[in-house]
Amino acid sequence: MPRIKCTVAYDGTAFHGYQVQPNKRTVQSVIEQALSRIHKGAAVKVVASGRTDAGVHAVGQVLHFDTNITIPIEKWPIVLNSQLTEEITIQHAEQVAEDFHARFSVRGKEYRYRIYFDKVRNPFLRNYAHFSPQSLNIDKMREAALLLEGEHDFTSFCSAKTEVVDKVREIYRVEILEEDKELTISFRGNGFLYNMVRIMVGTLLEVGTEKLLPKDIKTILESKNRSAAGKTAPAHGLYLWRVDY
Amino acid sequence: MPRIKCTVAYDGTAFHGYQVQPNKRTVQSVIEQALSRIHKGAAVKVVASGRTDAGVHAVGQVLHFDTNITIPIEKWPIVLNSQLTEEITIQHAEQVAEDFHARFSVRGKEYRYRIYFDKVRNPFLRNYAHFSPQSLNIDKMREAALLLEGEHDFTSFCSAKTEVVDKVREIYRVEILEEDKELTISFRGNGFLYNMVRIMVGTLLEVGTEKLLPKDIKTILESKNRSAAGKTAPAHGLYLWRVDY
Repeated sequence: MPRIKCTVAYDGTAFHGYQVQPNKRTVQSVIEQALSRIHKGAAVKVVASGRTDAGVHAVGQVLHFDTNITIPIEKWPIVLNSQLTEEITIQHAEQVAEDFHARFSVRGKEYRYRIYFDKVRNPFLRNYAHFSPQSLNIDKMREAALLLEGEHDFTSFCSAKTEVVDKVREIYRVEILEEDKELTISFRGNGFLYNMVRIMVGTLLEVGTEKLLPKDIKTILESKNRSAAGKTAPAHGLYLWRVDY
Repeated sequence: MPRIKCTVAYDGTAFHGYQVQPNKRTVQSVIEQALSRIHKGAAVKVVASGRTDAGVHAVGQVLHFDTNITIPIEKWPIVLNSQLTEEITIQHAEQVAEDFHARFSVRGKEYRYRIYFDKVRNPFLRNYAHFSPQSLNIDKMREAALLLEGEHDFTSFCSAKTEVVDKVREIYRVEILEEDKELTISFRGNGFLYNMVRIMVGTLLEVGTEKLLPKDIKTILESKNRSAAGKTAPAHGLYLWRVDY
């Protein structure tokens, strides 16, 4: 059966995360329902590059599914989008080899986290960026970010709930982009543990507000203890930006 | 009683417009409820520069109310915001003379309308900008926009439902700003009739898609007939940007 790879953007605000859960509205269940309607009621299983939590957004999530329906490949986004809520958009579709797997073939991912600062909240960003009323020392955040780059055991930057055993990951690059009243932190790496980006952001914010020193990142990594790192930053500032294969 | 003038931003998505309506969640009713809590249950009447329709946003709506409560003026935004949903933010407060009136003292207003074009919809803009899948001839839209400037009888650009008799308004400037995949049309004038901005945008879009010629604007104005102009553009692209006194 031909395999289709799709790039998908979604506003995670009103979803209980990506993955199917009984009696909850999730991104995966809404996409599978749309595919099922296109397949005359037959169930279609969708595989994504990974799950995202409730409130987390995606600009470039990737998924695959198998289908017998013959629709010209460039029409797939149009056909699927016509069956989807405007909160989810299929950006692109292409046919891939049968051994392509949206999860297992991942070579790297980029996440971005948006923070804005101002005297007062911005109602238009309440679901799309984390509000920081405090001013941040961005130079120190950049210094700390450098210490996160490279191959490390990220136990300290991972939810204690995780079941994954090997917590060694490589972060290729952490970039802090400043624009107007906004900060975007981009994380590129070969893989990310549960809550890892949000804990790294929470820790970088504590460096920004000078509760922590940049060099503390080293100690936190070495301690292999979740409680050594900062708070988990809120979900709504986080975007799965891009997946590489 | 001292009079307070506030600048307010709101995301109009989930409101039934600005103005109080029985059993509907409106911006005014939510602000009046917040003020009433601050005034220990006493009703506080809020007067705004004008109403906005359901789905229409505001970046710089202005309102006033009278109060006997002595809160330092710079604390009013903090106190009010603590009682408000994150969909509404008081940006600024100042004490004004008793003869200041948020509606009657208005000298001019600016509205902005956001349009974006792309191959597919952007889920993050679904409530904040109008999606145009067609490419637009922006030069022609600019030519047409020039013909809207000046003092005209805007009967053709006004909902037939309006009760206002004098439909002469002056538009100081219509500016079309292009950026990336977005177009923002700014309208500055001494006053705007019901649906006037949305009808002007709908008409400019028909010029952009070359259903109308720029010079048709002149004929439409002269006809003094709503049906001569274009469709009313959707509410969610519209922002009350600024009010001048």
